Amino acid sequence: MLCTLAPSKLQGSVLNQVCQHGRKSLQRIILDTDPGIDDALAFFLALASPDDIKLEAVTTVSGNVGVEETTPNALALLTLAGRTDIPVARGCSLPLVREQVKADYYHGHNGLGDVARPATTMQVVAQHAAQLIIEKVMQAPGEITLVPIGPLTNIAMALRLEPRIAQNVREVVIMGGALRVPGNTTPTAEFNIYADPHAAQIVFQAGWPIRLVSLDVTEITCLRPQDFAELTASGGPVKSFIRAMIDFHLRKPRPANEVPLFQMHDPLCLATVFQPGLITWQPVYADVELNGTHTLGETVAYFKADEAPGAPNIQAPVAVDSARFIKLFMERVGKAF
Amino acid sequence: MLCTLAPSKLQGSVLNQVCQHGRKSLQRIILDTDPGIDDALAFFLALASPDDIKLEAVTTVSGNVGVEETTPNALALLTLAGRTDIPVARGCSLPLVREQVKADYYHGHNGLGDVARPATTMQVVAQHAAQLIIEKVMQAPGEITLVPIGPLTNIAMALRLEPRIAQNVREVVIMGGALRVPGNTTPTAEFNIYADPHAAQIVFQAGWPIRLVSLDVTEITCLRPQDFAELTASGGPVKSFIRAMIDFHLRKPRPANEVPLFQMHDPLCLATVFQPGLITWQPVYADVELNGTHTLGETVAYFKADEAPGAPNIQAPVAVDSARFIKLFMERVGKAF
Amino acid sequence: MLCTLAPSKLQGSVLNQVCQHGRKSLQRIILDTDPGIDDALAFFLALASPDDIKLEAVTTVSGNVGVEETTPNALALLTLAGRTDIPVARGCSLPLVREQVKADYYHGHNGLGDVARPATTMQVVAQHAAQLIIEKVMQAPGEITLVPIGPLTNIAMALRLEPRIAQNVREVVIMGGALRVPGNTTPTAEFNIYADPHAAQIVFQAGWPIRLVSLDVTEITCLRPQDFAELTASGGPVKSFIRAMIDFHLRKPRPANEVPLFQMHDPLCLATVFQPGLITWQPVYADVELNGTHTLGETVAYFKADEAPGAPNIQAPVAVDSARFIKLFMERVGKAF
Amino acid sequence: MLCTLAPSKLQGSVLNQVCQHGRKSLQRIILDTDPGIDDALAFFLALASPDDIKLEAVTTVSGNVGVEETTPNALALLTLAGRTDIPVARGCSLPLVREQVKADYYHGHNGLGDVARPATTMQVVAQHAAQLIIEKVMQAPGEITLVPIGPLTNIAMALRLEPRIAQNVREVVIMGGALRVPGNTTPTAEFNIYADPHAAQIVFQAGWPIRLVSLDVTEITCLRPQDFAELTASGGPVKSFIRAMIDFHLRKPRPANEVPLFQMHDPLCLATVFQPGLITWQPVYADVELNGTHTLGETVAYFKADEAPGAPNIQAPVAVDSARFIKLFMERVGKAF
Repeated sequence: MLCTLAPSKLQGSVLNQVCQHGRKSLQRIILDTDPGIDDALAFFLALASPDDIKLEAVTTVSGNVGVEETTPNALALLTLAGRTDIPVARGCSLPLVREQVKADYYHGHNGLGDVARPATTMQVVAQHAAQLIIEKVMQAPGEITLVPIGPLTNIAMALRLEPRIAQNVREVVIMGGALRVPGNTTPTAEFNIYADPHAAQIVFQAGWPIRLVSLDVTEITCLRPQDFAELTASGGPVKSFIRAMIDFHLRKPRPANEVPLFQMHDPLCLATVFQPGLITWQPVYADVELNGTHTLGETVAYFKADEAPGAPNIQAPVAVDSARFIKLFMERVGKAF
Repeated sequence: MLCTLAPSKLQGSVLNQVCQHGRKSLQRIILDTDPGIDDALAFFLALASPDDIKLEAVTTVSGNVGVEETTPNALALLTLAGRTDIPVARGCSLPLVREQVKADYYHGHNGLGDVARPATTMQVVAQHAAQLIIEKVMQAPGEITLVPIGPLTNIAMALRLEPRIAQNVREVVIMGGALRVPGNTTPTAEFNIYADPHAAQIVFQAGWPIRLVSLDVTEITCLRPQDFAELTASGGPVKSFIRAMIDFHLRKPRPANEVPLFQMHDPLCLATVFQPGLITWQPVYADVELNGTHTLGETVAYFKADEAPGAPNIQAPVAVDSARFIKLFMERVGKAF
Repeated sequence: MLCTLAPSKLQGSVLNQVCQHGRKSLQRIILDTDPGIDDALAFFLALASPDDIKLEAVTTVSGNVGVEETTPNALALLTLAGRTDIPVARGCSLPLVREQVKADYYHGHNGLGDVARPATTMQVVAQHAAQLIIEKVMQAPGEITLVPIGPLTNIAMALRLEPRIAQNVREVVIMGGALRVPGNTTPTAEFNIYADPHAAQIVFQAGWPIRLVSLDVTEITCLRPQDFAELTASGGPVKSFIRAMIDFHLRKPRPANEVPLFQMHDPLCLATVFQPGLITWQPVYADVELNGTHTLGETVAYFKADEAPGAPNIQAPVAVDSARFIKLFMERVGKAF
Repeated sequence: MLCTLAPSKLQGSVLNQVCQHGRKSLQRIILDTDPGIDDALAFFLALASPDDIKLEAVTTVSGNVGVEETTPNALALLTLAGRTDIPVARGCSLPLVREQVKADYYHGHNGLGDVARPATTMQVVAQHAAQLIIEKVMQAPGEITLVPIGPLTNIAMALRLEPRIAQNVREVVIMGGALRVPGNTTPTAEFNIYADPHAAQIVFQAGWPIRLVSLDVTEITCLRPQDFAELTASGGPVKSFIRAMIDFHLRKPRPANEVPLFQMHDPLCLATVFQPGLITWQPVYADVELNGTHTLGETVAYFKADEAPGAPNIQAPVAVDSARFIKLFMERVGKAF
C-alpha cells in the first residue's frame, strides 16, 4: 500500500519521482541522536539490520533531553543490545544560537520513558562528536552516511570546523521538519528543527545530498498498542525494554477520542537509509525560518520550482509506504532480539 | 457528506463543535471585495439568496488586481445582475505597510478572466470604503456582518479610524488564510493575507467575532468543468459571463496530471454567513506572521489551547460539507439568473 | 554660532549643503500633535509667529498620552492663546500595528505636566484628523506644509485614504527619529517613531518632500532653567502656563550630575518650517526598522550614498544653530504673550 | 588628556567608573585575528610589550579577508618580527550562520594593504583554532585572556564545543561593535560584529567577563600621517612593512575635506588588556541584533540600567585617553623594531 498524502497538498508535485539510485547493499552510517524513545527503536532497527547497516559510530546531542542524559542513554542502549564495540562520542550540550528546549514531557525525564537505564561500563571516546564525524567522513570519502535524528547542532558544528565534509559525505538522511503539515512543537515547527533552527539552516544550505524524513510521513507511520504487544510477547532484554518504554507512552493521559498510536519518526528515517523506496521523493528548495515571531524553526519547502528562491537542496517526502515499513520493523526487530 | 480534513491534522481538535448560534433568517452584510473570478461568483450567490442575505453595500480594495480595476468590476457585476441600487464605495489602492502584490496571473489583467466588463453608468458613492463601513456599522449596532473576501486593508483602516466598530459589528466572516495546509501564494501564505499581512493582524487582534474561511476548507470545495457546463447551459447574461470567466480559467496551461477544478474560495465564505453549519468550527488563537523571512503573511493557529499565547480570537474551520455547499450554489445561482 | 555635531559622525557628510530654497514668507501649516509639554511650546511659537506661520488646523493623535487627553489639551492651549478660531480635528487613538506606548512618565498624566488644563468651550470639528488633512491639502495644492510633532499615525492614515496628498503637499517637516545618536525611548529609537514605526515607514516611503528634525539636533538645543525664569518673569496666562509645565519638568528627580535642561524638540521643528537655515541638511535615504528584536522603530539613515538601498527620501540634519533658535524662541514667545 | 565622548551621548552614564581591578603585570593572551592592517599593528604592539603581554598563541579567522589569507598573514607577521616560536592555529573559514562578508576594499586583497607578504617557512599547528583556544584555557584556569580582534566565529565555536571555557577564562577583550555611534560597515553595524552577528551574540551571552573596545573609542583614536612618518623614519623590516601598509591606506581616494587619519581599532584594544585605565568603562547589558532588516549585527547597549532586559554582561567604553595610548604605541613600537 502506498499511502500518499492528502491530495490537496500535492498539486503540482511529482508523485512518481522516486529516489532510485542504485545502492551498495551495506550502508556505513553515523547515527547522531538524542535518545529518546523512538531514537531507541531506531538503534534497535539499525542493529537488527546487519546486512544493510554498518553502524560506524553514535554521536550524542542535547534534544529530547540534555546531552548529559542522552549520552549515557546511548551507551546503555548499545550495551543492552550487546554492541559495546561501537564508539560513542558526546556532542553539544547547547543549541548554536537559541536557548535550549527539551521534549521531556514526551520522552520522560531520562529520555527513555523513565525506564531505568541498563547498567553499563561503556565509556565515550575522547573526541567531541563533531570531531569524530569529521574524522570518519574524511577517512572514507564518499562512504559515510550521516543519519541525524535529533537537533542538528553537531552536524552544523562539524561543517563549520571542516567544510570539506560536505564534499566527502555519501548522504545525509535527516529526521526532522514539517513541510506541508503543522509542526509538533509549535503550530509551525517540528521539534528537531525548532530545537536548533540555526544549525538546521547551516545543514540545509551546505550543498550536500540531503533526504529529509519529515513529519509529513513519519506522523502517519505508527505502531499500534497491539503491534507492540505482539512484538514484545517473547524475547530478551531489548524487547522488555521496548515494552517498558512504550508502556510509559501509552500511560500518558490523552483526549478521550485520541487513538493511542506511536509515531515511528526515527525508525522510519533509519529504514529509508537502506530502503529509500519506502518514501516517494521530490527534489525541492527548502530553508529554515530564523526570523518569525510565530514561525521560528519552520521548514519552508518550495514545491513549485518556479517560485523557489534557489535550486533544490533536499529530497522531500511526498508519499510513504507505511505498511511496508511497519512489516519490516516488526520482522527485523522481532527476529533480532 | 461531511468531508473532514486529513486525520493527521486533527489531533486534539474538537471535530463536532459546530458553531450553531440561532440566527435571524436575513443577514445584512457588507461585501468587501477585489473581484476576482471567485469574488464574482460570491456576488451572484449573494444576490441569488435574497431570503438569507441583504447586500447593504459593496466596498472595493486592491488585491487580485488594483482597485482601479476592482471598482469598475464591482459596478459592472451589480449592473449585470440588475442591482444598481446597491451602493459601491471605492477603498484602498495600496496595502497598509508592505508593497503591493497582485494575482492577475490567475484572475486575468482585468480581474474577471479578461472577459469584457459589462457596460454600466453606475457610479461609486462619495465616501471612502472605510468610511462607508463605519457609517453602516455604527448606524445599526449589532446588525451588520462584514464579509471581506479580499485583502483586509479597508477593514483595518475602518478599525483605526473608528475603533468602536469592533463592538458594534454583528460578525466578521473572512475568506483568507491557510491554517494547517500550505499557502497558495507562498509555501506558507494565502493570497488575501499575504497581500496585506499587517491589515490582517489588525483585524485578527481587534477583539470582535471572526469566522475564518481558510484554504483548509476552500481549496477542497471545487466545481468541476461539467458542473459549470450544467450551470450555464441555459440562462441570461450572468450565466454567460460566468461561463466566459470559467473558460478563461480552464484554458490556462496546467500540468498533465492536474485535474481542472475551480476552487470556490469566496462563494463558500459567503454561504457560511447564512449557513454556518456548512463548516465545523473550533475556537482558536490565531495570529499573522509579520517578521519571517519565508513566512510573511502566514496565518498561525494554535489548535492546542494550552500552547496558545492568547485566548481564542477566531473560529477556525476543521471540516466542511463541500457537497452540500456545491448543491446549494448550483441550485441558487442556477435558478436566479 | 553653528553647533555642528561630533566630528566623528560626520565623515563623508556634506556639512555646508544648506537647504536654501526660496520660501514664501507665510507658511500655511497643519500641526499634527500629541501635546505634550514641548508640543505646547511649539503651539506658542507658531502663534507668536504670525508673519511666518498660518496655522490652518491642529490635528491630534495618541502619543505622549492618549488622544482622549491630547485632544482637550489642544483645545485648551488654543483657548489659552485666544485662538479658538483654529479648527481642531481628533485623530487616531491607536498606532497602526503595534501596541500603544506612552510617555506620561515625562509629560505627566494629562500630557501637560499635570498642570490643570485651562477651561474651554471649544469643540473638535466633525471630521477625523486624517480626513481634515486630506481636505486641506487637496483644496490648496502645493500650499500646505504638514508638521507632525507626534507619532505619524494620522499622516499615514491620510496617505492610505488619499494617496494623492503626496503630490499635493508643500512639504512635511517631522520631529522624530535619531539618526546618528542613541534613541530616547529605547537605546535605538526615538519616541515618536517608536510609538508608531509602521506609520513612520509609510510616511518615509511616500515619495514626498520630508525634512526630519531628529534627536541629533533637538537634544542639543535646550533651554536652561534661567531661560524659562527670564521668559516667564512677567506676562499673561500663556507664560504662567509655560512656567507651571517647566516647573513640573524641573521637579522630577534626576541623577546628581545631570544638568536640568529642557530639550526643545518640537519648537525647533516648528521653527525650521520658516527658518530652514537653522539646520544644515543633507539628503539621505532613510528607513524605519520594523523587524528588529532590539531595534524596532530605529531610524536608519544611509549618509554614504553609495551604500544606500535607495535614492534620498529625506533631508537629514547634520548641524544646528541652537543659539540662534533659542534667541528666536525667547524673543517671539517673550513678546507675544 | 581624557577625551570624553560627545556630552549628548553620556546622559545618565557613569563617567568616572573606571575598571580598576588590580592586575598581574604579565597578561597571557590568545590573539584571535583576521589580519588586516590594524591587526598587524596590534601584533607589533603585543610583541613590543614583553613585560605586559605573553602571546600564547595566535588563532586566525575569516574577516577582513578569508582565512586562507589571514592565516599566512599571521605566519608572515610573526616571522617578520622574529617570533616563529608562537603557535598559530587556523580557524573558521565561514561565519556561523550568515553569508561571508569581507573588508578587502579597506585592507587590500591580501589583507595587508597588498604589501608583499614576507616569506616564511612557519606552519600552522594541527589543531583547529577553536580546539587550541579550548586547550589553552582549560590547561591554565583563570590565566588566559582572549583578545578577539576579528569576527567572533572561533570564540563562539570554542564555547559550543567546550562550554566550560566560560568559567576558566581570565577575561575576553573584544574589538568590535558601535554602541552610541553609527557603524562603519552599515549605518548601524561595525564590521567584526556584522561579519558574524550570531557568533557575537553567543559570545556576549556566555556569562563570562567581557570588555568591549568599540568604535565609540577606536574611531576617535587615530594616528596621523606624520606620526607614521616619524615612527618609521628609521628601523628594521617591521617598520618598513608598517610604512608600506599605511602608504596603501593613505593612497586610497578620499573626499577632499576628509583628513587622512588611521583609526587604531585593534591596537587600542590590545593596549587595554594591560592598561585598562586607557578607557573609562561602564557595566551595561548589551546584545546583538539578529533580526533587523537594516540593523543586522547592531550592538545594542542599555546604558540606562532600569530599561535593560538583563543584568550587565559587558564593560562598555564611555571615554578614552587617546593621547596616552598614541604615546604608548609610538614609544613601544618605535623602540622595539
